[in-house]
Amino acid sequence: MSEFELIARIIPQLPRNESVVVGAGDDCAVLDFGIAGRLLLFKTDAVVEGIHFTKEAEPEKVGHKALARCLSDVAAMAGTPTHALVTLGLPRTFEVGFVDAIYRGLNRLAARHEVAVVGGETTTNPERSFISVSVLGTVPKEKCILRSGAKVGDAIFVTGTLGGSLEGKHLEFEPRLAEARWLAEHFEIHAMMDISDGLASDLRHLMRASGVGAELLSTAIPISRAARSSRRAAGDGSGLPAGGDGARKPPLLAALTDGEDFELLLTVAASQAVILLDAWKERFADLPLTCIGRIMAEPGLLIRDKEGTRPLLEHGYVHFA
Amino acid sequence: MSEFELIARIIPQLPRNESVVVGAGDDCAVLDFGIAGRLLLFKTDAVVEGIHFTKEAEPEKVGHKALARCLSDVAAMAGTPTHALVTLGLPRTFEVGFVDAIYRGLNRLAARHEVAVVGGETTTNPERSFISVSVLGTVPKEKCILRSGAKVGDAIFVTGTLGGSLEGKHLEFEPRLAEARWLAEHFEIHAMMDISDGLASDLRHLMRASGVGAELLSTAIPISRAARSSRRAAGDGSGLPAGGDGARKPPLLAALTDGEDFELLLTVAASQAVILLDAWKERFADLPLTCIGRIMAEPGLLIRDKEGTRPLLEHGYVHFA
Repeated sequence: MSEFELIARIIPQLPRNESVVVGAGDDCAVLDFGIAGRLLLFKTDAVVEGIHFTKEAEPEKVGHKALARCLSDVAAMAGTPTHALVTLGLPRTFEVGFVDAIYRGLNRLAARHEVAVVGGETTTNPERSFISVSVLGTVPKEKCILRSGAKVGDAIFVTGTLGGSLEGKHLEFEPRLAEARWLAEHFEIHAMMDISDGLASDLRHLMRASGVGAELLSTAIPISRAARSSRRAAGDGSGLPAGGDGARKPPLLAALTDGEDFELLLTVAASQAVILLDAWKERFADLPLTCIGRIMAEPGLLIRDKEGTRPLLEHGYVHFA
Repeated sequence: MSEFELIARIIPQLPRNESVVVGAGDDCAVLDFGIAGRLLLFKTDAVVEGIHFTKEAEPEKVGHKALARCLSDVAAMAGTPTHALVTLGLPRTFEVGFVDAIYRGLNRLAARHEVAVVGGETTTNPERSFISVSVLGTVPKEKCILRSGAKVGDAIFVTGTLGGSLEGKHLEFEPRLAEARWLAEHFEIHAMMDISDGLASDLRHLMRASGVGAELLSTAIPISRAARSSRRAAGDGSGLPAGGDGARKPPLLAALTDGEDFELLLTVAASQAVILLDAWKERFADLPLTCIGRIMAEPGLLIRDKEGTRPLLEHGYVHFA
């Protein structure tokens, strides 16, 4: 049973109450505590040694990543993060310098976004470090953007470039908080999420939540430099053969299926697409925003290239799969 | 370096912001989001296989415990829990029935307290299950009870009976939510916390936070039936010799130092002690409330028995120690 089948099994059983605006299944839970004009965002995420980072990774970057993943989910709702808690599971023989460095990276990112780190928990996890972070944030009531609002005909956009994140970006990425808030403030964004499992996988989550299909334009996908130069072997679980040299994932496949991009995936009415691109270039000159396809009425994910249109069968990263 | 030395090292470095009423160091963080008349409580806690529960423990009870620990911290502030998130770290070969049962136990407790479970995260932790839970709650602004309010001369109380929790109670305990709210509503409770590391250890945390000392009355400590009959060997890290039969922790020592009681520890003005005991018996006939000592001006923890008064040197459970 994959992570996603497991989650689908768990969600219907979860108790709810009347303050829940959005429960499990979006980037953050959205809660109504009667705060004037705002909703509360609540999110948890974990990074595990050997799964999300190697033993050799710089611990400052591990701390950065542990918090940045949660902040990226707050960005996906166009929210502002406010508070974080940190649970550290550590082998009994941990080095104090390691923990200091984890916190140094985490605290620096928190301070930059005025996020208060208000406590947490240290416990024992004998074989490997396990860092679980929870964050709170807020979002204006009318500006909270869900995965479920995509409309047929919408243009699909992504920020940044995709693929090859494991070459380094996954430990250093900047959550797109300012960008997401700017988008929500200036445009009617119909649906948004962050890309953590890979574009092919996450776009399917957005399609399912919105009850729509999508078509991607192969030549439009913004492929990262890391994805183009990656020497990593294929065998990513996609079932596809390796690239031309037998030990290289084709760059387009990497951009579609590599996890951990932590870019924004969003949809807006097609009529807004050009205005959005122009305004974006003015405001965020250093970060690409790219229109990669459109939302379709028919369910299913298609990809169009010079040979025609075919169903996209590749998926992103899946735990336990 | 022990868990507590590590925490003391981390806390001063944590970024704060102006909405933080109480940051790291109390049972929950206390946050001001401008909710009318109420403060927000935010807490995270984890249970790890082989540390907080054995492989053989019933998974329903493991799920119950994972949430109950957090709810006990909300109780310690006299709050009401509202929402929870669950992060599950699982070996790749996990049984679906195990996860179902974890959630069954957790959901049942959540539903009983009208706590909505609004999402979470599943990830891989290859060697053992790791369950991290985050909770939100609220508390009336004037009724939030901290560890730091104990006053010289206060009577010290505990709910329930102490010690031997690992014989079974630690997987089944009921967080003292209703009791704590009743206490805060009807009495001026100066300081409160839950007992998770053992009375001797947790009372020291309360003393340090309040800048006071304390004297316990040995004969007054309410010793649980499990602590009296426990067959567990000594060697709990206290450095004390085992009990009379060489393989048994003396019951008083168990009540003072065993962790995982999850009872309330609180202080009130001595003048309120008898009125409180009478009102409590009327309201909570089935749960003992016991006066176990008093708050002193001199720093340090003393214990008084028929041979006189001596410093109490024993401590409770410490991770990594």
